[in-house]
Amino acid sequence: MNEMLKRDFDITISNNDLLDEAFTQASYVNEHKDQNLKFYERIEFLGDAVLQLVVSEYIFKRYERLPQGRLTRLRAAMVNEKSFSTFARECHFNEYIRLGKGEERANARDRDSLLCDIFESFVGALYLDQGKAAVEKFCHQVIFPKLDSGMFDEFFDHKTELQEVAQEDGPVAIDYELVEEFGPANDQMFRVKVLIANKEFGIGEGHSKKEAEQKAAQQALKHFDTSNMNLL
Amino acid sequence: MNEMLKRDFDITISNNDLLDEAFTQASYVNEHKDQNLKFYERIEFLGDAVLQLVVSEYIFKRYERLPQGRLTRLRAAMVNEKSFSTFARECHFNEYIRLGKGEERANARDRDSLLCDIFESFVGALYLDQGKAAVEKFCHQVIFPKLDSGMFDEFFDHKTELQEVAQEDGPVAIDYELVEEFGPANDQMFRVKVLIANKEFGIGEGHSKKEAEQKAAQQALKHFDTSNMNLL
Repeated sequence: MNEMLKRDFDITISNNDLLDEAFTQASYVNEHKDQNLKFYERIEFLGDAVLQLVVSEYIFKRYERLPQGRLTRLRAAMVNEKSFSTFARECHFNEYIRLGKGEERANARDRDSLLCDIFESFVGALYLDQGKAAVEKFCHQVIFPKLDSGMFDEFFDHKTELQEVAQEDGPVAIDYELVEEFGPANDQMFRVKVLIANKEFGIGEGHSKKEAEQKAAQQALKHFDTSNMNLL
Repeated sequence: MNEMLKRDFDITISNNDLLDEAFTQASYVNEHKDQNLKFYERIEFLGDAVLQLVVSEYIFKRYERLPQGRLTRLRAAMVNEKSFSTFARECHFNEYIRLGKGEERANARDRDSLLCDIFESFVGALYLDQGKAAVEKFCHQVIFPKLDSGMFDEFFDHKTELQEVAQEDGPVAIDYELVEEFGPANDQMFRVKVLIANKEFGIGEGHSKKEAEQKAAQQALKHFDTSNMNLL
């Protein structure tokens, strides 16, 4: 475990008991009563709150113009059982969980709910051992790059965001125009541009017009990254 | 506002724009469009997550033996609209909110939901200005003393906790015995002691047997504050 953490994340946990606790399920504790072990649930309680804050702070600072409702939706897309269990698998955390025999036979090691718990308890242990900055570094390795690679895109409606941002100071025309259809018939692609007040702000491609429009809106949003709205 | 914060909490916020934002409701922004103001909601989003973590960490470390389920219930008792709006009033935050005229007439200044938001947004501003340690200090002034004064006691079942802690290594008899009824007929009081394995561990008084038992259990729990279970 320590070798893997060092190799993959440049993390060295100094308190090994904490790390053991974070990867031990109650079923294992019950089968080894003589060893006076602890299971992960308390550390998971803490790790859950740490992840909420670290993700909240990151998107709060990165998306300066995103209103609260959309920050809340984006956080919910990032902080949930599906994404955390995916991260746990990518980090190979499933290989290190200590399970009782019955849980092992029941394939608990592949259960999303357990993997999500373990991801949170690992973060709790990292936080207790090394503080928030270490958790932030870990999130920059594991979670935040997924924002750019599009893992949460289905929860992230760029067209709505562009509308909110561009029309903050009053109504302005936002139009999407199909530029081109291309590619073979069985793999048709669309290219769409977005115009704000008749000026081109972005262009995007996708397998559907909807996807191309989202990409175009995403590109246009880069023009609004500063707090200066006088670009228009 | 700054004078009050300095006097009551020894807090000096260096970024005044942040503080203004934290205490400004959307209705006020709408009535002063020329001033290019921001309202509190984004900072509240962050403050909410900060409070979740700071409270979680405090109870995680203070109640070393409390299992996850009870930590979660205790946090829910501390982190909610009712308690946060109470804290906001105690801090006199209601006097500093900037509201639009309609909201003022509708008594929004006394609305629990708004006061809860403002408590969170103040914490968000404090966090952005000075970091987590400053928020912890503020919580030690405003929230955590309430644990000792009993504000959250109705959510905190000491009898169940004592049972969980005392029986961790196996079954042991826990008995509550009425010692005495005292006081005038219209203000009857009860004194109850708790015995663990026939040894007295605590005594409590209350206006009902149930209340006296809770107090006795709370006192008994002090014997289990260390991780050494061999006291029995």
